Amino acid sequence: MSLIVILGYSAAFLTSLSFLPQAVLVIRTRSTSGISLLMYSLFTLGVAFWLIYGIATKATPIIAANAVTLALASTILTLTAKERLGQKKAA
Amino acid sequence: MSLIVILGYSAAFLTSLSFLPQAVLVIRTRSTSGISLLMYSLFTLGVAFWLIYGIATKATPIIAANAVTLALASTILTLTAKERLGQKKAA
Repeated sequence: MSLIVILGYSAAFLTSLSFLPQAVLVIRTRSTSGISLLMYSLFTLGVAFWLIYGIATKATPIIAANAVTLALASTILTLTAKERLGQKKAA
Repeated sequence: MSLIVILGYSAAFLTSLSFLPQAVLVIRTRSTSGISLLMYSLFTLGVAFWLIYGIATKATPIIAANAVTLALASTILTLTAKERLGQKKAA
């Protein structure tokens, strides 16, 4: 494995790891009040684009990082969207 | 410009854009209470690694996205570290 690829995997590990506590908190507590639905939609779409970009350029660190983040981000986005829709119905 | 590069720049634009409101809020209000210093340090280091990875692989969308995010993230990290050190001194 080249030094560049190791650097890429280190970057992937660090940015995915730093995203994990927020994801765990939201998934556990279902508390999504601090999340902007618009910004989170843009972020999730961006991560999906990075994943496709990684696949297209055959960059495995980018694929790994964004596959993990996309799974977590889309779960949070779904929970947030459900909560907001529930609040609208209740109001 | 190839379709892949356009996709990469779209991804860069989206993930950087979604990061911006949080950064602006913290820089404006100097309110860093919701930020984990450890997790933010890991994130900032990860973004720095992505920037070096982008330069090493000559991937301009990765360079662009992570240069912008690193500038914002390191500002937030500096503000957070200063606040925490200030609190320790005051206590």
